[in-house]
Amino acid sequence: MTQGNQRERTTAGVIGLGFMGASLAAALRRSGSLTRVLGYDSEPAAAKRALDAGFVDEVTDSAAAVAGAADLLVLCTPVQRIIGYLTELGPVLRPGTVVMDIGSTKHAVTAAMDELLPAGVVPLGGHPMTGPATAGVTEPDAVVYEGRVFLLTPTPRTDEETLRWCTGVMESLGARVEVVDPERHDRLVAVVSHLPRMLPVPLLSLAADDPDPMLPHLPAGGFRESTRKATESLDMWVDVLVTNAGPVADSLRAYARAVEAVADQVAEGDQTTLRALLADADQRWRALFDQP
Amino acid sequence: MTQGNQRERTTAGVIGLGFMGASLAAALRRSGSLTRVLGYDSEPAAAKRALDAGFVDEVTDSAAAVAGAADLLVLCTPVQRIIGYLTELGPVLRPGTVVMDIGSTKHAVTAAMDELLPAGVVPLGGHPMTGPATAGVTEPDAVVYEGRVFLLTPTPRTDEETLRWCTGVMESLGARVEVVDPERHDRLVAVVSHLPRMLPVPLLSLAADDPDPMLPHLPAGGFRESTRKATESLDMWVDVLVTNAGPVADSLRAYARAVEAVADQVAEGDQTTLRALLADADQRWRALFDQP
Repeated sequence: MTQGNQRERTTAGVIGLGFMGASLAAALRRSGSLTRVLGYDSEPAAAKRALDAGFVDEVTDSAAAVAGAADLLVLCTPVQRIIGYLTELGPVLRPGTVVMDIGSTKHAVTAAMDELLPAGVVPLGGHPMTGPATAGVTEPDAVVYEGRVFLLTPTPRTDEETLRWCTGVMESLGARVEVVDPERHDRLVAVVSHLPRMLPVPLLSLAADDPDPMLPHLPAGGFRESTRKATESLDMWVDVLVTNAGPVADSLRAYARAVEAVADQVAEGDQTTLRALLADADQRWRALFDQP
Repeated sequence: MTQGNQRERTTAGVIGLGFMGASLAAALRRSGSLTRVLGYDSEPAAAKRALDAGFVDEVTDSAAAVAGAADLLVLCTPVQRIIGYLTELGPVLRPGTVVMDIGSTKHAVTAAMDELLPAGVVPLGGHPMTGPATAGVTEPDAVVYEGRVFLLTPTPRTDEETLRWCTGVMESLGARVEVVDPERHDRLVAVVSHLPRMLPVPLLSLAADDPDPMLPHLPAGGFRESTRKATESLDMWVDVLVTNAGPVADSLRAYARAVEAVADQVAEGDQTTLRALLADADQRWRALFDQP
């Protein structure tokens, strides 16, 4: 790929204008890295909202229309839908088009990209470590990418120049880019993202199966906060589990062993040990989130 | 105890004016169930804040001054401090005084009440299922008791009349009173309250022990939300663990088994099974919190 090609990348296309996709479109438009941002959503109302909010320059009636016009196409739907689009959109993609996604798991998507995308189209997996809770916003907003890690997962078909260019684009949104291979990505996010999503599931089943009839009357703020993730998008999370089953199951089993170890310490009932246990966790939290 | 005695209960005393104690004082004052609410906190600044906010009628310089004047004395400190107060305050309590607490565990406190309180003083354990997160408020407020379950745990020394009277007082705050024995209480709250507090501890240790150097850069909103409880008051929670070690360890072990069961289902990677798993958890959450 030449410098000439690079200069011709003027049009971004975003398919899927939910929270993450609409925020990405808004961030791309604000950054000015590309001169035009097109959008499509299978729900016309979502497309209209993104257009009315100024997150995109134009919306189209079909995914194919965006895909055919884009120099950088970003698929922002649940993982299995991304894989569906890779099959459907191949025929309309022009050579040199960069096809990215921001799906939650990367092995399944990047393998599908390499297998399904026509020759000349350049695939690149992506996964921004951000979301509604991160930025403290619930409506799509360009700021959700600012200061957040954006993981890029190249495939064997991703050339160096494209990786560099995409890194620059994501950095222009304020993101901090890290490059990892898809398998390493999937293991890491199983621990930091998928495992936390799953913790309420066994907690709710434990509560539901409790023999004491008073139990359902007692859950208050603490229980509610600890289980609220159980209501997060089923479509998205079923896709995550199906496409990352091995690493998620491994992380759940490692977690179960860690829970057993905590149970052993609690059972001893020793004040000094238990204070150290809680103080260590508190310190670890503050170290991760830079809060003294 | 006679109706005459009952009419003479005019003064409430609250020892410990943190979030829960100050909110209880405010709720008692607003309800008018007793004509005067006295308060004490070992930190003079906390006492002054409660007085300035109008949560109490008066503050005193010592716990003994509140205890000697109160008809209903409520100890609102961490559990082990409650037990300390039961020893210290015995000599100043007048016969007929009702001594309650709102500590998080009840077996240790009620056993100490029965052992340490002078004859003629009536003990009663209490535990409101509420807190800062429940009411959506972070400053003390009378409303934190409204519509919430208030568990009362009588001891062998609690007479029926006192239990009825205290039930009425707590209902006058808008609380829904349930009466349980202390051991049943401790097992129930181990599941609905103490277990959720502990879930971040093994999650943070798993992340800290992960061999991949990139991991610490990745935790985002989901991980943060799932582990934030690790920063909740160490003093209070060490007390909870020490005084409820057996039930908490049991609930952790039951949870670890439930996590293993979820891991087995995830490992299969079957879309239909996994959708049912997540949908069940979602439904259980909505059933508990009355949200369709």
